[in-house]
Amino acid sequence: MSVEKLQRYREQMRTELDKVVEFWQKYSHDTQYGGFFTCIGKDGKIYDELKYVWLQGRQVWMYCRLYRTMERFNKPEILEAAKSGGAFLRRFARIPSSGSPWKCAFCLTRDGKALKVQRTIFSECFYVMAMDELARVTGDKDMQAEAAQMMDQLVHWVRVDPSGLGKPQLSGDTPVCSMAVPMMLLCLVQQLTEARSGEEVDKYREVGGWCVKQILQHLQRGGTAILESVSSEGKELPGCEGRLQNPGHALEAGWFLLQYGLENGDQELQRTAVDKFMEIPFLTGWDKEHGGLLYFLDVDGYCPTQLEWSMKLWWPHCEALIAYLMAYSHTKEPALLERFSQVYDYTFSHFSDAENGEWFGYLTQQGKVALDFKGGPFKGFFHVPRCLYMCEKILDSILNKQES
Amino acid sequence: MSVEKLQRYREQMRTELDKVVEFWQKYSHDTQYGGFFTCIGKDGKIYDELKYVWLQGRQVWMYCRLYRTMERFNKPEILEAAKSGGAFLRRFARIPSSGSPWKCAFCLTRDGKALKVQRTIFSECFYVMAMDELARVTGDKDMQAEAAQMMDQLVHWVRVDPSGLGKPQLSGDTPVCSMAVPMMLLCLVQQLTEARSGEEVDKYREVGGWCVKQILQHLQRGGTAILESVSSEGKELPGCEGRLQNPGHALEAGWFLLQYGLENGDQELQRTAVDKFMEIPFLTGWDKEHGGLLYFLDVDGYCPTQLEWSMKLWWPHCEALIAYLMAYSHTKEPALLERFSQVYDYTFSHFSDAENGEWFGYLTQQGKVALDFKGGPFKGFFHVPRCLYMCEKILDSILNKQES
Repeated sequence: MSVEKLQRYREQMRTELDKVVEFWQKYSHDTQYGGFFTCIGKDGKIYDELKYVWLQGRQVWMYCRLYRTMERFNKPEILEAAKSGGAFLRRFARIPSSGSPWKCAFCLTRDGKALKVQRTIFSECFYVMAMDELARVTGDKDMQAEAAQMMDQLVHWVRVDPSGLGKPQLSGDTPVCSMAVPMMLLCLVQQLTEARSGEEVDKYREVGGWCVKQILQHLQRGGTAILESVSSEGKELPGCEGRLQNPGHALEAGWFLLQYGLENGDQELQRTAVDKFMEIPFLTGWDKEHGGLLYFLDVDGYCPTQLEWSMKLWWPHCEALIAYLMAYSHTKEPALLERFSQVYDYTFSHFSDAENGEWFGYLTQQGKVALDFKGGPFKGFFHVPRCLYMCEKILDSILNKQES
Repeated sequence: MSVEKLQRYREQMRTELDKVVEFWQKYSHDTQYGGFFTCIGKDGKIYDELKYVWLQGRQVWMYCRLYRTMERFNKPEILEAAKSGGAFLRRFARIPSSGSPWKCAFCLTRDGKALKVQRTIFSECFYVMAMDELARVTGDKDMQAEAAQMMDQLVHWVRVDPSGLGKPQLSGDTPVCSMAVPMMLLCLVQQLTEARSGEEVDKYREVGGWCVKQILQHLQRGGTAILESVSSEGKELPGCEGRLQNPGHALEAGWFLLQYGLENGDQELQRTAVDKFMEIPFLTGWDKEHGGLLYFLDVDGYCPTQLEWSMKLWWPHCEALIAYLMAYSHTKEPALLERFSQVYDYTFSHFSDAENGEWFGYLTQQGKVALDFKGGPFKGFFHVPRCLYMCEKILDSILNKQES
């Protein structure tokens, strides 16, 4: 592929990122109560004022990351917005009445009252991401310490004792390993160790190694399938739960593993990331008739029970773009750039909204917009800008090397 | 409409009911552990062995109801299957470790170990339905007493103190009235009072009156919209939750109210049931382009956040058939029979599977089968046979009157 084509991709990523940042700056800031609205209609109108904690944390993280690492976003208004979100989270996200000082709500009212709490670790994970990245930008040591303390609690819930999460113990509910948990923790390890050293970092590295081993357990059936959930012994589970595949999630795990393999000079892990976690989801998950990645699949070909299984969601496509471009930039295998191109064409022609900016999130299997909002309970300022940001960075690095 | 047409409908209902009963008798019985498989593929194959308590209870109820009130199903194998399901439920459904002797699991393993529990009342409601109907068939007084005791607990959870359901109290989580709760209790009141009298029945009648009042609170906006959730003062709630409409559910409430209005000689309630709860969901929920009832709608025209909002599900169509036929049989308004016809044509041509029997449950907006199984975590032996059974009974009564 020509340098011109790569330059065109970079230009597109850059322009789209600018538009997406502009969209969220314009519509999502709650100047009255702080934090961010996330339920935003196709033309920017707020259709619900609830504040989802995952999305508050992700937006703080994304703003700080852009501010810190991309010159054109190193602007006071970006920092101010991030700080407002951080303050809102610190003031309202945690629920002391839960019995743990670290348990966070899933959803808050506009003015910060807890509305829903999940018995999982994800609100807390995005809280840690937000606090650590904001601390990097502001130099706030208390905030960084808070992120580290919550991380300790997360590791305890995951590796030692989950009872603090509030799930009742039931006789038939044998422990299940969901790929999301080690992926999320690995992401936090990367966040907390970046450009740091010392005892704390060694502790996180051990956690990182554990996460990688856990993620690799999801490669099943003699290395031919990535399954979302396995037993605590790393074996396939019975029934629908055991057979479930989520191609977008496997692709995201793929670039997490590739990044980890590159940082640690682990070539075998790099190959597994590309050959398994990026290749298998494409072969099984790409819709040959209509294009795009299916949301869920059953490894034995049964119909998944998730009503949305055949829909095309924005975020698996974001993860696929990052995965294939990252893999290409390190392997220089043209087939991986072809993959990127194929996903790129589908994604930009189906999700991106030229009229009002930002991306639609949910398409039918046939590629028609099924839900027309730009932000919702699970779609915020995260997957789209992270994808555009990372692709722009990777393209910079490929093109800089080619030019030098 | 001609008598011949009504006779043809009755014939179709009867034939279809026979086929549906045959399907579940053939594929769903677990002869090893008792109870019923409910995850059944398009051709009858079990794709998951989990046992969902809602569906166990519903299948016991439906078998008993058919056995007790339709001569051609008064067969020992139907009774035996119901008894097996009832025994499975009594042995395994309740979770003493929950702190209440009445809290039931949502999902069990094949051999009856509790896997999931919901912090709602619905597993328990279907348990009561099953036990009371099975007690009517078997004459088992203990079982009937158990149903009554659990009903008392349900009423306590709903009207006095919900804390036993295990939901944490959160500062932003103001009480919300979901239409499902009074609908379900009203259904149980009908079940427990049918052909009975005495003190117990008077107590239930009071509950029934309360349920009707609660359901009527969901008629909002000057009588122009049925909203799924309202505040405990019967006012509209803010945001997506407050604006949500579920046309199938409103139609089901419609025939519950009509039935109650008829039994109690309340003509105003009968009119409200037909003019509001049956008319509004059709005007707003019927898809004029593709036919069929949409699953969810936002009363202000925003896009619902439920990914499946535009899909066509089997059960709203079942409820619509019962509602319009029941309304026609009492009012004799030809427009209502036209409605029934319109829903009938869509339903029988899209959901019913002529090849392997039973109905598909989930179609795309365009009417294509999206999930091809016949049974799943929420689709069991209930809405389809209840609809066919009730329509056959109603058609019998219309035709008998016309013939006499």
